[in-house]
Amino acid sequence: MKAVRLHEYHRSPVVEEVPEPTAKEPFDVVVKIGGAGVCRTDLHLIEGQWDGLAEITMPYTLGHENAGWVHEVGSAVTNVAVGDTVILHPTPTCGLCHACRAGNDMHCENSVFPGLNRDGGMAEYLLTSARACIKLDPSTHPADVAALADAGITAYHAVRKAVPLLYPGTVCVVNGAGGLGHIGIQSLRALTAAKVVVVDRNPDALKLAEQLGADETVLGDGSHVEAVLDLTGGHGAEVVLDFVAEQGAQQDAFAMTRRDGSHFVIGYGGTLEVPTIDLISTERNVVGNLVGTYNDLAELMVLAQTGRVTLHTRKYPLEAALDALADLDAGRVRGRAILTP
Amino acid sequence: MKAVRLHEYHRSPVVEEVPEPTAKEPFDVVVKIGGAGVCRTDLHLIEGQWDGLAEITMPYTLGHENAGWVHEVGSAVTNVAVGDTVILHPTPTCGLCHACRAGNDMHCENSVFPGLNRDGGMAEYLLTSARACIKLDPSTHPADVAALADAGITAYHAVRKAVPLLYPGTVCVVNGAGGLGHIGIQSLRALTAAKVVVVDRNPDALKLAEQLGADETVLGDGSHVEAVLDLTGGHGAEVVLDFVAEQGAQQDAFAMTRRDGSHFVIGYGGTLEVPTIDLISTERNVVGNLVGTYNDLAELMVLAQTGRVTLHTRKYPLEAALDALADLDAGRVRGRAILTP
Amino acid sequence: MKAVRLHEYHRSPVVEEVPEPTAKEPFDVVVKIGGAGVCRTDLHLIEGQWDGLAEITMPYTLGHENAGWVHEVGSAVTNVAVGDTVILHPTPTCGLCHACRAGNDMHCENSVFPGLNRDGGMAEYLLTSARACIKLDPSTHPADVAALADAGITAYHAVRKAVPLLYPGTVCVVNGAGGLGHIGIQSLRALTAAKVVVVDRNPDALKLAEQLGADETVLGDGSHVEAVLDLTGGHGAEVVLDFVAEQGAQQDAFAMTRRDGSHFVIGYGGTLEVPTIDLISTERNVVGNLVGTYNDLAELMVLAQTGRVTLHTRKYPLEAALDALADLDAGRVRGRAILTP
Amino acid sequence: MKAVRLHEYHRSPVVEEVPEPTAKEPFDVVVKIGGAGVCRTDLHLIEGQWDGLAEITMPYTLGHENAGWVHEVGSAVTNVAVGDTVILHPTPTCGLCHACRAGNDMHCENSVFPGLNRDGGMAEYLLTSARACIKLDPSTHPADVAALADAGITAYHAVRKAVPLLYPGTVCVVNGAGGLGHIGIQSLRALTAAKVVVVDRNPDALKLAEQLGADETVLGDGSHVEAVLDLTGGHGAEVVLDFVAEQGAQQDAFAMTRRDGSHFVIGYGGTLEVPTIDLISTERNVVGNLVGTYNDLAELMVLAQTGRVTLHTRKYPLEAALDALADLDAGRVRGRAILTP
Repeated sequence: MKAVRLHEYHRSPVVEEVPEPTAKEPFDVVVKIGGAGVCRTDLHLIEGQWDGLAEITMPYTLGHENAGWVHEVGSAVTNVAVGDTVILHPTPTCGLCHACRAGNDMHCENSVFPGLNRDGGMAEYLLTSARACIKLDPSTHPADVAALADAGITAYHAVRKAVPLLYPGTVCVVNGAGGLGHIGIQSLRALTAAKVVVVDRNPDALKLAEQLGADETVLGDGSHVEAVLDLTGGHGAEVVLDFVAEQGAQQDAFAMTRRDGSHFVIGYGGTLEVPTIDLISTERNVVGNLVGTYNDLAELMVLAQTGRVTLHTRKYPLEAALDALADLDAGRVRGRAILTP
Repeated sequence: MKAVRLHEYHRSPVVEEVPEPTAKEPFDVVVKIGGAGVCRTDLHLIEGQWDGLAEITMPYTLGHENAGWVHEVGSAVTNVAVGDTVILHPTPTCGLCHACRAGNDMHCENSVFPGLNRDGGMAEYLLTSARACIKLDPSTHPADVAALADAGITAYHAVRKAVPLLYPGTVCVVNGAGGLGHIGIQSLRALTAAKVVVVDRNPDALKLAEQLGADETVLGDGSHVEAVLDLTGGHGAEVVLDFVAEQGAQQDAFAMTRRDGSHFVIGYGGTLEVPTIDLISTERNVVGNLVGTYNDLAELMVLAQTGRVTLHTRKYPLEAALDALADLDAGRVRGRAILTP
Repeated sequence: MKAVRLHEYHRSPVVEEVPEPTAKEPFDVVVKIGGAGVCRTDLHLIEGQWDGLAEITMPYTLGHENAGWVHEVGSAVTNVAVGDTVILHPTPTCGLCHACRAGNDMHCENSVFPGLNRDGGMAEYLLTSARACIKLDPSTHPADVAALADAGITAYHAVRKAVPLLYPGTVCVVNGAGGLGHIGIQSLRALTAAKVVVVDRNPDALKLAEQLGADETVLGDGSHVEAVLDLTGGHGAEVVLDFVAEQGAQQDAFAMTRRDGSHFVIGYGGTLEVPTIDLISTERNVVGNLVGTYNDLAELMVLAQTGRVTLHTRKYPLEAALDALADLDAGRVRGRAILTP
Repeated sequence: MKAVRLHEYHRSPVVEEVPEPTAKEPFDVVVKIGGAGVCRTDLHLIEGQWDGLAEITMPYTLGHENAGWVHEVGSAVTNVAVGDTVILHPTPTCGLCHACRAGNDMHCENSVFPGLNRDGGMAEYLLTSARACIKLDPSTHPADVAALADAGITAYHAVRKAVPLLYPGTVCVVNGAGGLGHIGIQSLRALTAAKVVVVDRNPDALKLAEQLGADETVLGDGSHVEAVLDLTGGHGAEVVLDFVAEQGAQQDAFAMTRRDGSHFVIGYGGTLEVPTIDLISTERNVVGNLVGTYNDLAELMVLAQTGRVTLHTRKYPLEAALDALADLDAGRVRGRAILTP
């Protein structure tokens, strides 16, 4: 089958032929890919940012945001059957460690992360496990929802954690209205009555944000921190969801956060520098965020299937993976790029 | 009356005569001071670290950690009477803003902070409000409990926030076993069954920590981050309570924090620098902490009066305030220094 | 001034002349009433259901759901001024007890409840305190929002407590779509993405429920428990908000509650009988609900002022108070009856 | 092998020979029983109280509180190996339903409950699953800890849920100091600083309670509700853990619960009757409790292995199962009876 594979850092991946995976272990599931999202993390992987953080053996197939149809199942699989339409939690987990037993899939001590540290879904078939599969209505087309499998779950997970802080009368800043941010805006609309203020450098992204329900939009032109303070009576926002967190955005996001407020770091790439006196004198929090739980993804699928979260995608054939990566890098993708094998 | 007053930054305060305060407003309370704690924040105030963060008009009287006896009350005060023994929440609050109505005294929009931005308790008398007073058993001597009014409430507040994270089987690192840390250790013992690991540069502080119930102690000799990782199977601790947060301790504290764990910043002075990829790939949190609520202090008094939290103090007459500050600065105080007018 | 006063249980109240109240204490506020809601609790008071539960001295003025304009303020009042438009939290509180310091106004140890145990707002003027006042935009007409002061805050408070249980994919049953229920439906829509199923005996109430955003409606015709089980795959709902809780509705509501679910009791009048084996074998909860906090009311006003919660009211002049009570008792009021002095 | 089997309701179980179980499915685990607890639920099962609530096919082997050594494992088991010492969560679960994915093992949609609805552990061998096994230090003797597998986890689960309500200054009543209650007292001591008041009809049980750390004991002689009110300033307790919940104890327990407090129902057998006005006017909660999560049991084992929770047991050979049941029924067991095959 065809697959998009990374052979070394700082070089473009290659679309090439590899053998199809098969289900060997009792809980193995092989999925025929219907859609595989293209994510800023793919760019970061190519740049080597994850070197040392994830145990990566090259070459391997990219693609950590996948949906499709069950193609083959192991002997003990009971929750899905061949032919089922499924979306995949990004990390097949063991189900037995403390984190799994608490529902925190993303902290499983024995998980793998297809697309990060083993073969991912930018291919015709993907090997995953029964624990990663969420069965969907058969009328769903995988390419239409694949972006929820990583961009979606990550944005939703952060919003879900922020919900208790976002009672009526509070303000939530969405810093960055791209692939994750545009799902974050809709999740906020579905789960809270907070005022949503969206900041982005791109006027088109702000237009989309307005259509998705943003109460206010602020152009990221250098005066945006001041603009957010003005919109919040000089106080800042109770919650800032920072979907950028690089190139200085992380400092701006912290500066937009109110006393007793929380800066949720979701994007990455930069370094946050905060004098500890600023943390304690205002009792602010910096909250790390990493994908989400299996149940987070199941909940998000409910929002998607009832029309509360809709995706803005641009589809590319698998062979055009490099074009999709280039478009993402150049800021030419509104919403999310999806490969369709 | 005598008072310890700061006239300008970077110069020692002066013990001098000032007029006694009187109760003018309906909710005013004048307290005859029985004990006023000496805090690292007093050193930071003299160094000018709070310049710009608190509206300070010089000269003013230091002392934000106070207990004593009610001396005079305003016309509408009902909760305390002249002669009552009281410990004082550090911030007299309005009782009407959103934060006050939610019980978050330390975020009152209209509060003052005696000893920080108006006359404090390193004096014979202090002007405060009915809302700051917690009535104590008349057998209590104020000098024995004064340190709970700021060091105590701050350490307790952080522990209280950490309790949901510290179920049996988890580890809490106490970084710094001084004035706040030694109360933190006891509060952890009273409220959780977590394993308590104490880190300090001073072997005497570690001895005290052991007596107070620390499960493990680690000398802060440069190998302490590694030692904590060794004690936690290489993972780090679910919670690190960083009572230092300066001179690099803040970086060490973050490095000791486990995946999905929380670094509570309580001390201050340094700057925390964290690559955002480290925040997101492990989903760690940095949690700011500022004194605590009125109810926090009331709860802590229950622990003190039932013997679960005991203070280690060294008493100085008011006139010896500069000696106490010098001893604190030189690391010669075990527990807390208290001025007794 | 005119006032609607209860002289003895089981007899109609009387509209009669009484002296106007005045502001004597520092925090007293006298409000010129613009709207006073008529509540099922007024019927229950007349029936003597609160005898022994509230310290009632007859005769007294009914009316615990009030809004109007500030008419006179005590010497220490700073948060409102004469002429301000205000809605009133139902219980003026002390601000000093543990409950007040935790933000739980409805559990103040020293509160009074105008309309229940002292003179209420079915009159031209009402004596309350600064702590009960929430200042509104001057364009607001008190009669349009008065019903939020008790029906609203009570429904909102219950919804607010239920929010953490109502993640996407869950079901919330609203049992009773009357004065409180119709606000509950809108609050659920504003704060959650749960599926809302409304049960009522009255087809007109169900029509209103649909307009307000109910996903499903069920006629309370005796087959309603079965109907709710059918709608939930035989499981019942994660949350049942029981706005009736009398005449057997309380038993039905518990029966509609799912394993691991919660039955919120908000209405009252009946007796709940549950075998303890049913509580433990399914780990269900029964949750009592009483008005709400000051901040609850402030949040609800945000929802009202942004159009997320709208009231359905029917206005009566003060003199027609008995007609309003009779209409309520006979089930002739859609939404809420409001007296306008 | 020998097993204690129930053939019909209202008749004594029989100790008889049955075939040994074997591991057929990939996740099956067969455990050689080292200790099987005897529980009031066994009496309730014999009395037919669970008829209709659990799908029971007679005859079957009793025993839902088990520990032992792994004897045989299925092909896909990785977390335990033959020879390991293990304690067993009472309900082998699927690991795939929403409840399992949230960590709520006791609400698994596909679980079985050995000893309740399939063959249990009052036998030489028990068939369970990998997901039910918690590996213990090999020096642990199963008979010493078996009671933690059901009595322990149930008491601990209730305490764990109550922890956020039990801050310093609050009171927790333990109603019933038997098999579950004596673990509850120790769990409260380990996890909270609340004042613990123990009520029991048996003076010996109260003596044990004092040794385990109860602050106050109250003899259940008919004046106990009044006695608890006297001990709490007339208010009642913030939390009442009702380990009895039959023969009127459930009504007493509710009556001992404070305004804004919670009555945790853990025992069962009686019917709770509460006027809904009493629920709403005081905003009290009734909280159902059912065993606990796998992680609850893992946490409890930490408390047991660090000596914070110790069991009081009386051991009987498997053949004497009927004596143990009779002793329990007659109130002759202090702590917990354990069968040792």
